[in-house]
Amino acid sequence: MRANYRMQRLFVPHDLAQGLEIEADTQQSHYLANVLRLGEGAQLLLFNGRDGEWLAQVATVAKKRVTLAPVTQTRIQPEHPDLVYCFAPLKQGRLDYLVQKAVEMGAGLLQPVITQHTQMSTVGIDRLRANVIEAAEQCGILAIPRVAEVVKLDRVLWEWEPGRQLIFCDESAETNNPAPILKTIPSRRLGLLIGPEGGFSEDERRQLRALPFVTPIPLGPRILRADTAAVAALAVIQATIGDW
Amino acid sequence: MRANYRMQRLFVPHDLAQGLEIEADTQQSHYLANVLRLGEGAQLLLFNGRDGEWLAQVATVAKKRVTLAPVTQTRIQPEHPDLVYCFAPLKQGRLDYLVQKAVEMGAGLLQPVITQHTQMSTVGIDRLRANVIEAAEQCGILAIPRVAEVVKLDRVLWEWEPGRQLIFCDESAETNNPAPILKTIPSRRLGLLIGPEGGFSEDERRQLRALPFVTPIPLGPRILRADTAAVAALAVIQATIGDW
Repeated sequence: MRANYRMQRLFVPHDLAQGLEIEADTQQSHYLANVLRLGEGAQLLLFNGRDGEWLAQVATVAKKRVTLAPVTQTRIQPEHPDLVYCFAPLKQGRLDYLVQKAVEMGAGLLQPVITQHTQMSTVGIDRLRANVIEAAEQCGILAIPRVAEVVKLDRVLWEWEPGRQLIFCDESAETNNPAPILKTIPSRRLGLLIGPEGGFSEDERRQLRALPFVTPIPLGPRILRADTAAVAALAVIQATIGDW
Repeated sequence: MRANYRMQRLFVPHDLAQGLEIEADTQQSHYLANVLRLGEGAQLLLFNGRDGEWLAQVATVAKKRVTLAPVTQTRIQPEHPDLVYCFAPLKQGRLDYLVQKAVEMGAGLLQPVITQHTQMSTVGIDRLRANVIEAAEQCGILAIPRVAEVVKLDRVLWEWEPGRQLIFCDESAETNNPAPILKTIPSRRLGLLIGPEGGFSEDERRQLRALPFVTPIPLGPRILRADTAAVAALAVIQATIGDW
């Protein structure tokens, strides 16, 4: 949407401070030196999820190794978003999309959850993490959501953090509008649970509705796909009781 | 999200009523007869955007021609959504996605708009229409959004319907939350304008802000891609002043 971020933004695991010199990893070095063809002195932005955003210069360019020197901090590190985003893994293309969108919409923790109708039983956590970093690089996000290991829905619910509310999108709700329901939620520490393409089972729905920390919400009169529901729910939550 | 729609749903241009016999077109006939391998008497759902949803039976199966007989109406035709959804065409993959999402989120008219930073100067209107029908088939939507011809932003604004409000997502807004601003909009006849990946130009922004029927809204503290912004804006609009 915004055209402000033409400058290359790169995630690095290293500390960022003036006077340091950072070695880009092999893949990044190749990209900077051979694809972007940046020379010594070229500028780019660095972030590590801890030290805000830094304007940096290419310090040295060797064949397979580029070093980078942070020059000055351009943005301070924002508070880490608190929202726990629980989702049933979808097929790979839609999953990549789901993860990207969650990062843009301000999730703090991505928690893959296996439900009864989940088609995927394994999830490439490394690919999820890579997607998170890519979305953060592209969208100028400095607080990088954490990615948790895949767990079953039962365990997520048993081990749910006391005081945190869990919102789930319930297609069998009797009203259409989530906003009035969201406003009654007693806490601002929130989780959102997005079901698989096949929806939740009747058992899961009953189990969820019976829990005191769970709030079912509707999402309008039309059927939404899981990935649409995810963005729509995040938008309404953020605008009603979240960080917008 | 919902698992209720396992039965095949098909769009047909024909009238739907009891006692009629409808010829599926060549592509649909091939799909029904050779891919799904439906035999005579098999059930499916039909809709045409006018007569609601009908349970139908396969009446005859010939090599390249399947006929279908509507049996009983299963849902009545809902009111056509009023929301005008103006969008700068994106690259094809993201455009397909954008159109799907707009259908799910209740757009009534899809209006492709060329802006200064729009990368695509032509849009395959037939492909847009095919995407709309596919999304409607998959998501159980009966009111099929119309697709207008591509026009330039200037002309959209000059010819804007009196009394209809136009909302656009303005990344330079000074607040983060769209909900309070949306609530001040004096009409429920709405349009939404989503810019291209490169955003609106400074001129366009100025032009839009100066128009009495235009309301700029923010979409949170983070940068959103155009396709994310589209779903997020639609969700907040529908939940605040729309049809949810």
